[in-house]
Amino acid sequence: MTSNKSAIHEQGNGYFDEETSADVVNARMGDAADPRLKQILAVLTKHLHAAIKEIEPTQDEWFAAIKFLTDTGHMCNSWRQEFILLSDVLGVTMLVDSINHRRPSGATPNTILGPFYVEGSPHYRNGENICLDGKGEPALVRGRVVDVQGRPVAGATVEVWQTNNDGFYDVQQKGIQPENNLRGTFSSEVDGSYWFQTVKPRYYPIPYDGPVGKMLQAVDRHPNRAAHLHFIVSAPGYERVITHIFTPDCPYLAEDAVFGVKRDLVATFDKVDDQHLATEYGMPSPFLLVNWDFVLAPSAHAAG
Amino acid sequence: MTSNKSAIHEQGNGYFDEETSADVVNARMGDAADPRLKQILAVLTKHLHAAIKEIEPTQDEWFAAIKFLTDTGHMCNSWRQEFILLSDVLGVTMLVDSINHRRPSGATPNTILGPFYVEGSPHYRNGENICLDGKGEPALVRGRVVDVQGRPVAGATVEVWQTNNDGFYDVQQKGIQPENNLRGTFSSEVDGSYWFQTVKPRYYPIPYDGPVGKMLQAVDRHPNRAAHLHFIVSAPGYERVITHIFTPDCPYLAEDAVFGVKRDLVATFDKVDDQHLATEYGMPSPFLLVNWDFVLAPSAHAAG
Repeated sequence: MTSNKSAIHEQGNGYFDEETSADVVNARMGDAADPRLKQILAVLTKHLHAAIKEIEPTQDEWFAAIKFLTDTGHMCNSWRQEFILLSDVLGVTMLVDSINHRRPSGATPNTILGPFYVEGSPHYRNGENICLDGKGEPALVRGRVVDVQGRPVAGATVEVWQTNNDGFYDVQQKGIQPENNLRGTFSSEVDGSYWFQTVKPRYYPIPYDGPVGKMLQAVDRHPNRAAHLHFIVSAPGYERVITHIFTPDCPYLAEDAVFGVKRDLVATFDKVDDQHLATEYGMPSPFLLVNWDFVLAPSAHAAG
Repeated sequence: MTSNKSAIHEQGNGYFDEETSADVVNARMGDAADPRLKQILAVLTKHLHAAIKEIEPTQDEWFAAIKFLTDTGHMCNSWRQEFILLSDVLGVTMLVDSINHRRPSGATPNTILGPFYVEGSPHYRNGENICLDGKGEPALVRGRVVDVQGRPVAGATVEVWQTNNDGFYDVQQKGIQPENNLRGTFSSEVDGSYWFQTVKPRYYPIPYDGPVGKMLQAVDRHPNRAAHLHFIVSAPGYERVITHIFTPDCPYLAEDAVFGVKRDLVATFDKVDDQHLATEYGMPSPFLLVNWDFVLAPSAHAAG
């Protein structure tokens, strides 16, 4: 802790100065600090001081920020993570996700995992129905799991989960929805194909009864996530993809509260009135048809 | 909430994009938001995204940050404010204080208030002794309260508080130190002069048993504040000054944990062996003599 300190003494430095404030703070870190932690804290401090110089907060505004962070911390418990919500609504979660999942052109992009994933959902054969409550517009999702050269990936694991027609996940409505409603695990066939029956998902609000919800309201933002199906697609040798597909007609598609929507993740849900196709897949007629391929990057590209 | 949203739709925008991430987030705020809040959040979001792009955190590092903020929130209660400590050790408190208290050249600079101020400390006549526990090196603090033209300010209120010789404030050691030990309120005389007896203050650590203390340790920083006396000096028509004077020989002078030291706040504590002077002020001999003037700016300059 000493070698850099004597240098500070020699420069007659170490005193606070508005002009050089971030440098004064960052120079204080010692040689025994982990270099990566030191870098992270130095960059955060630099940008934080720059933000404050741009904002020029009053003392009251500074204290309001302290209070907001304190309230956000107090809202966190074993089942509610308000700081992750804050990260979500500020686009930080998506930014970190994107930085860690840059993929070759054409590969299916990642988006955020969200809090409603459950490991070990029921295994289904292709074509089975994951909707157990019988509510909503029937939809057939079908496509192929392929690599970036378009070659089929056989035996890929396709996990799906989504809201029911009321905008709730099964785990949010235990005792109301059937267990494992609208969640399941499929495997791609030899030609890479997968298909299953479900219903159209609905938009829903993130929890907005805490400080983050109050903040959204204060800046005139709604708390709704655009309607989507969640997927995790994985196969040996390929980077695991955590992704969504979005319905094209959701009123919140361009305003997803957590910025999860990427251009390449918006599907079409075509109303199909084709008795032959309906019979082939065991669907009522008409039904919504979603054609969707997952394109996996080789795992060498995995960054996180 | 709608007028800017249709614009987003028209641009086909609103989807997340790593390149323009902060703009996408900030465009989401609606017209009904308070303009100042909108500005503050937009600037914070811009700099936060810039920091993250520079850092490129892994998912684990992002989660470590979430956990740190959560732990910091959980450490806060009615008597412990860990987010203010975080603000302090990152130099943010001092930066906000400086922005809000820019003063004309020559005026006594502000520094942070700290958590140990108590309103309504005992009134003393000039020359009385605020040290009630008899410990430490006797010191005489004397000087004048003047305006920026050097004219005396009569009847100014000079409130002082400091640690005892063990590095604790009275309020930290109730039942151990005498009540109101080393804190008092004086008034300047007609010629602006004030003087009182005390002892040399000692350095002390900020609370370091929480997440902020762990962070300091991880970046190889100590938690000690440079030894100082606190002052609040006020008079009608002048901007109130919240300030310190620092001892010049404290080992932490150039390393104050909360960056409270400004060049113009370091005093001299001269050992004086002058029986005449000692008798005049009722001091033992030798004693430490601190000559210190407070220079008040007119209250028109008050920013906060």
